[in-house]
Amino acid sequence: MRDVSIIGVGQTTVAEHWDRSIGDLAVEAIAGARQDAGVDRVDALFVGNMLSGELAGQENLATLVADVCGLLPIEALKIEAACASGGAALRAACLAVGSGAHDYALVLGVEKMTDHLTDGVTSALALAADADYEAAHGISFAALNALLMRRYMHEHRARHEDFAPFSVNAHRNAALNPRAMYRTPITVDDYVRSPLVADPINILDSAGICDGAAALLIAPSSEARRARRPPVRITASTSATDTLGLAERKDPLVWQAVAGSARMAYDQAKVKPADIDFFEVHDAFTIVSVLTLEACGFADRGSALKLAAEGRIALEGDIPIGTLGGLKGRGHPVGASGAYQ
Amino acid sequence: MRDVSIIGVGQTTVAEHWDRSIGDLAVEAIAGARQDAGVDRVDALFVGNMLSGELAGQENLATLVADVCGLLPIEALKIEAACASGGAALRAACLAVGSGAHDYALVLGVEKMTDHLTDGVTSALALAADADYEAAHGISFAALNALLMRRYMHEHRARHEDFAPFSVNAHRNAALNPRAMYRTPITVDDYVRSPLVADPINILDSAGICDGAAALLIAPSSEARRARRPPVRITASTSATDTLGLAERKDPLVWQAVAGSARMAYDQAKVKPADIDFFEVHDAFTIVSVLTLEACGFADRGSALKLAAEGRIALEGDIPIGTLGGLKGRGHPVGASGAYQ
Repeated sequence: MRDVSIIGVGQTTVAEHWDRSIGDLAVEAIAGARQDAGVDRVDALFVGNMLSGELAGQENLATLVADVCGLLPIEALKIEAACASGGAALRAACLAVGSGAHDYALVLGVEKMTDHLTDGVTSALALAADADYEAAHGISFAALNALLMRRYMHEHRARHEDFAPFSVNAHRNAALNPRAMYRTPITVDDYVRSPLVADPINILDSAGICDGAAALLIAPSSEARRARRPPVRITASTSATDTLGLAERKDPLVWQAVAGSARMAYDQAKVKPADIDFFEVHDAFTIVSVLTLEACGFADRGSALKLAAEGRIALEGDIPIGTLGGLKGRGHPVGASGAYQ
Repeated sequence: MRDVSIIGVGQTTVAEHWDRSIGDLAVEAIAGARQDAGVDRVDALFVGNMLSGELAGQENLATLVADVCGLLPIEALKIEAACASGGAALRAACLAVGSGAHDYALVLGVEKMTDHLTDGVTSALALAADADYEAAHGISFAALNALLMRRYMHEHRARHEDFAPFSVNAHRNAALNPRAMYRTPITVDDYVRSPLVADPINILDSAGICDGAAALLIAPSSEARRARRPPVRITASTSATDTLGLAERKDPLVWQAVAGSARMAYDQAKVKPADIDFFEVHDAFTIVSVLTLEACGFADRGSALKLAAEGRIALEGDIPIGTLGGLKGRGHPVGASGAYQ
């Protein structure tokens, strides 16, 4: 497989874009990435998106994007992997360029969650859970994560306020990012007083519902010098799965897919957790950051809250997370988040 | 890019599977493909599907399939490209194996259209059209194809009954396929008397709504000798896009994406249309067969009806199409059809 690099990036502000369509968001992000790279050629398009059919009334999304962005007649596919869709689209583009089938591949992560056709974004998000054993019984993603958080608090004798540093850190970082949705820092007191969503998860444990698009242009590393700015070489790219239903996992607090894909990525890149400079964790809920940091080897089981309490996840810490605000502070346009990261 | 081959195939009968879930269908097709290949190893899973979120209430489908098929923790992605989803998943698997990132990749095309959550499969299918300029105004895929058929009849002075050979051929071939949905041959008279769907398209111009799953195991051609049966080498794989909205095309009767991807495939394989032994055309409507045969160079513009009238598309003809019944006779479980083909 050929070595690949990111040679350009573009993004919209993450916000409630009531006046813009999913196509409008795509156009801005893709134009940004192409301009950033200073390369005209695009051979293929990989669109990461979860809910365009349910919320925007548009499947066949990759063709729509190729069309509105003036990219016809290139190959264009939509990749759906729930909250991982944006990252999965990047992965698919790496395989396409790595294989030699394409030289310049665009990745777009996009989600339009406001101004939608249905009245239930929470129900739409629950389509990522097991339809028969979870969603049909009314369980939402906030509820699933509440079960995990409650179990974690029980097992490790933690209090809800111990999770505050994750939310405070995300909002502090988002305040520094002009493209973030929430630009106001919060305090531990704000966190503690925040209204409940699904006990013990409250509003400030949860990433916001919003719209956004982020794009990346991928090229063989051998061609990357053609770009206007220093390329970012992709030294590892891996992917793994675990049971869809939470109840089927041997231990719900041990995230096997996360641990396995991280281990493969460390092996591919020949690094260990201590070598990592910063980590873009998928902090859809504060408990997700905790379990992910532990699964990826940044903290032992039960010790991620201590890592956060010691300030080590902050920009000046030894393992900064959510450096641009994370899903919590920048906002979480679901299928776009992986591309933003 | 490494040379790749298909080393095993599996499929469910195409039918209205009222008593089986989308996961059940996947299990049967995948078990069949693995058994057919006689190879245990699977490194990745590419699921082609259009409407699992809308009709089965299940996104994150590739993880569900990996889970119910006992394939965890492999990489698993869903590919959505409307009616092309099954073929697009095969394409993505070819890139993954071609790149060297994976050796054994499963492709699954699956769609569950009966026993669905909503009351409008026709509306769900219209999500593949342009949401703002077509679907929002109530136009369905039958209606879009009716516009094309009417235009073709006008331009080439054709009668509706001139399209009969496509439907008769599909049902004749389906009668020979035990896995097909419709096993009864039809006559030209049946075709002419069939009830209208969207004038001039009638029931026997249209592929049926149904459920099904088909799977393929892909491997590097160098490994293919490990399989139990002779592998099928993939000599070309290409993809292209055209405007989503029909009204935006310069000439609606010239299918540029089909013509362009066919041309690239001929070049890759170093063949010409006359070298092709049979053609699995996407006959969702009879007019689609006509325009596709013309776009792929099997007939000059306006002459595909003559090709059919002369019996050249039949099994004993020089360019047999829909040899296992096509979408019309075997049935068209939308995202699965490309994998069945």
